[in-house]
Amino acid sequence: MTHPVSPLAPAQSPRLHALAGVRLAARECNVRYKNRTDVMLMEFAPGTTIAGVLTRSLTRSAPIDLCRKNLKAGKARAILVNSGNANAFTGKAGVASVERCSRALVAALKCKPGEVFLASTGVIGEPLPDDKITANLPAIIKDLKADGWAAGAAAIMTTDTFPKLATRQTKIGDATVTINGFCKGSGMIAPDMATMLAFVATDAAIPAPVLRELLARGADRSFNAITVDGDTSTSDTLLLAATGQAPKHPKPKSAGDPVLKAFRAALEDLLADLAIQVVKDGEGAAKLVTIDVTGAATARAARRIGLAIANSPLVKTAIAGEDANWGRIVMAVGKSGEKADRDKLGIKIGGVTITEKGQRRPGYDEAPVAAHIKGQDIRIAVDVGVGKGSARVWTCDLTHRYIEINADYRS
Amino acid sequence: MTHPVSPLAPAQSPRLHALAGVRLAARECNVRYKNRTDVMLMEFAPGTTIAGVLTRSLTRSAPIDLCRKNLKAGKARAILVNSGNANAFTGKAGVASVERCSRALVAALKCKPGEVFLASTGVIGEPLPDDKITANLPAIIKDLKADGWAAGAAAIMTTDTFPKLATRQTKIGDATVTINGFCKGSGMIAPDMATMLAFVATDAAIPAPVLRELLARGADRSFNAITVDGDTSTSDTLLLAATGQAPKHPKPKSAGDPVLKAFRAALEDLLADLAIQVVKDGEGAAKLVTIDVTGAATARAARRIGLAIANSPLVKTAIAGEDANWGRIVMAVGKSGEKADRDKLGIKIGGVTITEKGQRRPGYDEAPVAAHIKGQDIRIAVDVGVGKGSARVWTCDLTHRYIEINADYRS
Repeated sequence: MTHPVSPLAPAQSPRLHALAGVRLAARECNVRYKNRTDVMLMEFAPGTTIAGVLTRSLTRSAPIDLCRKNLKAGKARAILVNSGNANAFTGKAGVASVERCSRALVAALKCKPGEVFLASTGVIGEPLPDDKITANLPAIIKDLKADGWAAGAAAIMTTDTFPKLATRQTKIGDATVTINGFCKGSGMIAPDMATMLAFVATDAAIPAPVLRELLARGADRSFNAITVDGDTSTSDTLLLAATGQAPKHPKPKSAGDPVLKAFRAALEDLLADLAIQVVKDGEGAAKLVTIDVTGAATARAARRIGLAIANSPLVKTAIAGEDANWGRIVMAVGKSGEKADRDKLGIKIGGVTITEKGQRRPGYDEAPVAAHIKGQDIRIAVDVGVGKGSARVWTCDLTHRYIEINADYRS
Repeated sequence: MTHPVSPLAPAQSPRLHALAGVRLAARECNVRYKNRTDVMLMEFAPGTTIAGVLTRSLTRSAPIDLCRKNLKAGKARAILVNSGNANAFTGKAGVASVERCSRALVAALKCKPGEVFLASTGVIGEPLPDDKITANLPAIIKDLKADGWAAGAAAIMTTDTFPKLATRQTKIGDATVTINGFCKGSGMIAPDMATMLAFVATDAAIPAPVLRELLARGADRSFNAITVDGDTSTSDTLLLAATGQAPKHPKPKSAGDPVLKAFRAALEDLLADLAIQVVKDGEGAAKLVTIDVTGAATARAARRIGLAIANSPLVKTAIAGEDANWGRIVMAVGKSGEKADRDKLGIKIGGVTITEKGQRRPGYDEAPVAAHIKGQDIRIAVDVGVGKGSARVWTCDLTHRYIEINADYRS
């Protein structure tokens, strides 16, 4: 089943420059799909550190268990990913598949068992035909090249309608460092984690504990702040590897180290870029919706209120119908369970103040709001009037295409 | 905008017998709708007790505040309801509307201010033209009759495609008592409360504190166990009045009093009947889905897992597409946040065991499940393998009609 490309897709995919210490390859292995690549290998130079954020789903996939175990040591030589089959809810057979893939990869790369990472995405509950992956491994390794980013991004797509890539260059001290990343995700998107799979690498030299802190913080403001349908995947994986092959730079002591200031900003920017691409490719998405919540008791409360709005089918269908039905935003704030002052609630759409002091503003003119909501980039701002907590979340509208895509995904 | 009647609507609406101490009337007041009744009055004999369960939304409507205040004394002479306008998020103007309606009703019925209850349902954020209601009040009161149940149920409908009524007869001691009720609700349906408005009355003589206990318990297994879209309304109101006009019967001392055994069962059955009618009229519903969760840590955990499944857009669209995609049930269990043993998870659809020991059952034959899912009455059973908590919840599928209905509701 092929879906038309999302109307929100970027006009052009960014071209990622080679990043010292990373090589990639993709191959058509027919795990489930035909006539497309479906297995991707990312290989790292010896000495590469890694950090990750993984799904907290209690029905997590078998590869998630491997990643969690191997992330402890924080060293990586490879990430092997297949699309078409999630290897989730596959019981002992799934664990055995992970072991076979891992062993084959360790043997081929002559690395340590704790240095390989796996991810799988696609249908849940079907045994993974891992022999199709391992049989192709020698050929994939032979194909590895520094210029394989776009190929990697394409191979991990499932219902995605466009590949999602991002790149940033920044400085640590005087050294120029690069951050490259790609991700996939379209449905079953909600914190935590939002995207199903995201792989980011930098040539900076960053110890694993610092990398972990940087990633946790960045994920919070990107992949953990987006939702398409409120459904959390069993396979969500975000990995960040640092090869240390960039020109020599001061060694950061912590994520808050001033030497990392620009790097932190670049990383967070890249993660938000990738996360927003996921929302823009949200199943059936026709509009990107940015929701800013202010005046909440805490930042956490603000995010929960934002997600209550972002996950409301009534809000999302109103936006799909280009109807400035702000009453549904009032409803969603009310159901969030977080503290809000009904009689101070302020709502803006497209920058236009609609409510103040708990009621519609006198003389409110719907015309500019109605015009705004016909666009593709919808801005909602809500002040709940109780404190100083704020958060930004992103979502998309809920359209007929969502139903079409999901009512026959397996077929 | 008129919607075609739900395919799940009952072939025939039950005919409710008169209930001593209750009279009803409905009238076309043009609050918002034209050419239909939109205001309903339910009048009770002096001495009637009342209990209620109200929305916990922090953006609750003005009438909710009045009901909460008046429920404390537990005495009722009337419930006045309008459809078309929710009088929610209407600030001081909304409070003034409530006061004017309440005062007019108290004056007309010559009762105490604490004995009247109001409810409003419809669009949020528009000032309520309460003069249209109060001007019609004398005519409505003149029309009051014991046989007005169907008229009352029709007048409170909004996007509902059929009126929702239920009746039971049972015994308290040797006395035959009747319970009659009706409700409305179709979208914005989720605990707590599930339905937007439900009004139930009995001729039994039950003190208000006992009535409160009975209602809380009954609501938990009915209106608090259903969801259409996970969106909680600002106006949800469930009221239960007891007129005490039935033949003399022993006075119950508590909700657990053995004399109430049959009454409790009849009341819970009636509440579940009404709640299921709401799901059957869920916006765009083509299938009723009953989800039984067992093996959870507690009953509360079981209900949360059930609602995670029931609210999952991916599960609901799969059912709409008649696709036995049980992997999405696995996902929903995982995201519920409640304890579950991935490796013991058992899933049945239509009574057929699909998974055991954390994977698909060997030799699983999808044919009978595929046949079941083409029906209108879908049964899902999930055992999460950690304890003895169980719960049943109801939902409907998520179809194109939901989008159609909600993308242009205000227009």
